[in-house]
Formats: sequence, structure tokens, C-alpha cells
Amino acid sequence: MNFAIRPATKADSQDIWRMIRDLAIHEKMLDQMNTTYEDLERDAFGQNPWCETLVAEVPGEDKSKEGFKTVGFALYFYSYSTWKGRKVYLEDLYVMPEFRGFGIGKNLLRTVAKVAREKQCAHLELSVLGQNIHSRSFYAANGAEDITARDDWHYLRFGPQSLTNFISCQK
Amino acid sequence: MNFAIRPATKADSQDIWRMIRDLAIHEKMLDQMNTTYEDLERDAFGQNPWCETLVAEVPGEDKSKEGFKTVGFALYFYSYSTWKGRKVYLEDLYVMPEFRGFGIGKNLLRTVAKVAREKQCAHLELSVLGQNIHSRSFYAANGAEDITARDDWHYLRFGPQSLTNFISCQK
Repeated sequence: MNFAIRPATKADSQDIWRMIRDLAIHEKMLDQMNTTYEDLERDAFGQNPWCETLVAEVPGEDKSKEGFKTVGFALYFYSYSTWKGRKVYLEDLYVMPEFRGFGIGKNLLRTVAKVAREKQCAHLELSVLGQNIHSRSFYAANGAEDITARDDWHYLRFGPQSLTNFISCQK
Repeated sequence: MNFAIRPATKADSQDIWRMIRDLAIHEKMLDQMNTTYEDLERDAFGQNPWCETLVAEVPGEDKSKEGFKTVGFALYFYSYSTWKGRKVYLEDLYVMPEFRGFGIGKNLLRTVAKVAREKQCAHLELSVLGQNIHSRSFYAANGAEDITARDDWHYLRFGPQSLTNFISCQK
């Protein structure tokens, strides 16, 4: 299978949005997806973008049964550690099911790793659910270390309602 | 205790650097700190900064026994979720020991929460070590939810050597 990895442009928004939804449907968590297509287009491709995206494309003769040539994506952003310096965080990595097994995901991941190296980042980081054994094996096989298992870091979150409560409480 | 919270400028680099080191020493993890003063100054206050910082200042009459007026800081960056949209990640929150108990930390945290709200972020997120019971209580009391305990997310990392290995391996 021939494929090419390239930085996404605004013209790819529809394809990226379609695959983000496919991933949410696959994980039976579409109800957790609050972003709209307009959010993604504005945040990923507006002024001062909040993330960067790579897409994987196949030639026309290999297009999906629905007619899609853009068959995978990796979405990441830059983060920072006061102890380690510059970092990249990989938010999403996805390849359409019928295009798996050809190395597209690994190639997307390697391209993100190269971006991290070019930007002089110390770390490339990401999160996976404990139950996602397949992804955990994939990343481990490629050299990622499970920091949660090693150090017992806990990830904490203020959601929209907690933020509102905390901002308005002046105690 | 009177204090003021304001965005940091390059002139604050020495104070922020001193407190990042103090925090690492306090946690007995100074050997984990690889960033230099020059890294911080360039990454936090150069062109296209990798993070933003707030500092807490006290009046001259309340300065620390070593003569410092900048007694706390919060360092954060912007992150992104394909399901939730814009987010802020709080990397470090620190108040010098002799200035604790006056609400400086909570005020720094609230100022970061307000930045998150102004930027239309859905979430403010951060990580704490499981053993850091004091911090976990502080954040929980202010409304943060422990996502690691709730959802079993695992945080994975490619460190510098893993990145090099992965980039150079073309399998």
C-alpha cells in the first residue's frame, strides 16, 4: 500500500473531523465529544492554532470503499516541563480500519517524533486508556514508557462547571 | 499579607528559575531537573514562548528573609482535546514555604482558571504524584476531579533515547 504523510491544511478539516468522529464511535464514546466541526476548523487552522495535524493519504486507486483518500491522521500540540523543557503531546493517532496493517500509524507516529526532535523536545508524550491493550502494546513496542505505572502520577481536571464554581467562589 | 498576582516578564526569569529549583530540592528530585536557566529564559520569554507564567509579589516590607519579593509562581501552557476543545495545563504551582497559608497559591490557581475561561477553554488540567496527599486535597477541595482514578488513563512517554531509537529505526 502506497501512502504519503503530510501536514494538514484547512482543506483537510472535513476529513479530520470525520475520523475524529469515527474514533469516538468506535470507542462507543460519541456522547463524550463536545467539539463541533466549526470548533475544530477554527482551533486547528485559524490564527494562532491550538494544535498541528498530519494526515495520511493513499492514491486514488486505493481509496476507501466510501471514496476517501485521507485515511489517517495524527493531531498533536506543544507542551512544556520546567524540569525537562520542550515537549510534544500526541492527542490523537488514527488510521481507518481497512487501512491498518500497512505501517501508516507507525509512520504517522514517527513523523510526529521527528517534529519533536526538530523542535528540540525532550519528550513525546500521550495517554491511553488502561483497557486499550492493543495501543499500549503498540507504543511500548516502539519505546514508550508507562509513566503512570512507574511513578503513580495522577491526572486532575477542572471541568467547565468546576471552573465556573472555582472562579466565582472568592473564599 | 498583601500580595499581587501579575503576568511574568523576562525580568522575572531569575526568580522563577530559583523557585523551580527550590521545588525540585524540596521534592528531593533536583537530579531530575535537566533544564538550564538559559533554557527557561529562552522558552518562556523568547519568540513563540512555550508557556506562560504568573508571579506573586509581596511589598518590600514583607520580603523573604533572603530579600526576595517574588514569592510564588504558576507556569502553564495551552493544550487541546479533539473531544473537548481548548484546554489549559498547569505545569507548576509554587509558593515559598514562609509565604504559605495566606491564599497566594489559591489566588495563583484562580488567576490561571480565569485565563482558561477567557480563552474559552473547556478544562484546566494538571498532574500530581499519588504520594502528594497535601496537593491532591488542595485541588480536590477546589473542585478538580482525579481522572486517573476515575478512568484509568495511562500516561506514556518517549524520552530522549527512545525518540532517537524510534526515529532511526526504519522497520
